[in-house]
Amino acid sequence: MLYNKKLTIEYVGTGFAGWQVQLNARTVQEELNKALTKMYKKKINVIGSGRTDSGVHALGQTASFRTERYLEPEAVHKGLNSMLPEDIAILNVVDVPEDFHAQMSAVSKTYLYKIHASVNRSAIYSGRVWWVKDTLDENRISELLKIFEGEHDFSSFCMQASLKENNVRTINFAKCYMDDDIICIEINGNGFLHNMVRIIAGTIVEAVRKGYDENYIKNVIDKKDRNEAGPTAHAAGLYLKKVYY
Amino acid sequence: MLYNKKLTIEYVGTGFAGWQVQLNARTVQEELNKALTKMYKKKINVIGSGRTDSGVHALGQTASFRTERYLEPEAVHKGLNSMLPEDIAILNVVDVPEDFHAQMSAVSKTYLYKIHASVNRSAIYSGRVWWVKDTLDENRISELLKIFEGEHDFSSFCMQASLKENNVRTINFAKCYMDDDIICIEINGNGFLHNMVRIIAGTIVEAVRKGYDENYIKNVIDKKDRNEAGPTAHAAGLYLKKVYY
Repeated sequence: MLYNKKLTIEYVGTGFAGWQVQLNARTVQEELNKALTKMYKKKINVIGSGRTDSGVHALGQTASFRTERYLEPEAVHKGLNSMLPEDIAILNVVDVPEDFHAQMSAVSKTYLYKIHASVNRSAIYSGRVWWVKDTLDENRISELLKIFEGEHDFSSFCMQASLKENNVRTINFAKCYMDDDIICIEINGNGFLHNMVRIIAGTIVEAVRKGYDENYIKNVIDKKDRNEAGPTAHAAGLYLKKVYY
Repeated sequence: MLYNKKLTIEYVGTGFAGWQVQLNARTVQEELNKALTKMYKKKINVIGSGRTDSGVHALGQTASFRTERYLEPEAVHKGLNSMLPEDIAILNVVDVPEDFHAQMSAVSKTYLYKIHASVNRSAIYSGRVWWVKDTLDENRISELLKIFEGEHDFSSFCMQASLKENNVRTINFAKCYMDDDIICIEINGNGFLHNMVRIIAGTIVEAVRKGYDENYIKNVIDKKDRNEAGPTAHAAGLYLKKVYY
């Protein structure tokens, strides 16, 4: 029997080449692997709920790992936070059944996308929020986001090289609200294609700026062609907020 | 006659060795000097309202500079924002009378100090907020801050090497409020000694954690000795919020 644990992880993506281990680059997964390997004195490789790209942040990424030796969750929590660099923090550690798998067991995920819509640039938001040099009506964004809810083929909203055989996903909700002067787009779905949230955000911002209506968005979805959608919004605005099991 | 301009500047201090130009280090003043020298095609050296230390942020630092050639404030504003790196942003540019001096003309300044008081570390706040691994009662902080209001000799709250002949300053207000889960300390005064806000913050946090009362703070002030005060709070929590003229 192996012991299995689930980690909930917060990180600032700015200093990382993304989640997944790669040669000659600093990644979140590798920092976790290093700390856990040291703690358990045995090679450990954590499984994330999914990758995040370079510059993308997480408020609640999850990962799981199995071990032969048992350590108390609280000890792992404290130990990791004392070993990890300050741009990664462990929010929670719990014991989970042996068959739990951070990626395969996930039911849905919520992503948050932050936009600062202003003619003036902000330094404080740099690296944390996407700056759009314009004013944007958040009610209009809400209206256009509604079109994404439900089951759709999201081929238009996927980096072309990452297209899969099946690009149908279900969006449970897509909403917009203000947090101070930041426009927040929140999308929960049963799965996301590569760059999907960023291409949705980029397409909606372009549509609002150019005054395109609902039919434009519907048409982009129908075309199943990345070239029909808008630009990929900046990585710095994207946060993996929560993974549901 | 020379034309004189006042800049209002926002910056994230993390990537800078502070405000003031120094050899072999990236500073905010030097970035501004470089951009303005390029724009005016003449060597320009901006005068700041005061220095900020390495890692300290600004929401409203001010600086002034004089030139023989006149450029419209709006052109300088746009030009600077297009030339400056993303961790510095110009918020405002205005024409000011020839005798205006960003440092000498300042009447008061407001500093903001941010504290995350929690047993759990946050990655998102790293570099932007001081983490205190404890819970803190913000009402108690407010009460202790009140003692600093008015005119006092702040020798206990100054880095020893930076003591001046006259260390008497007037604090117009010192208050505390919550912004989400962040404890914000805001202090407005007619002048600040080196590290004064950070030593006040560090002393108050220590007093609250150890249950010291008002008399402890009064005594620290009376002693006029840096060794009587608490630790210097982390640079990352400090923001120069506004300079009044």
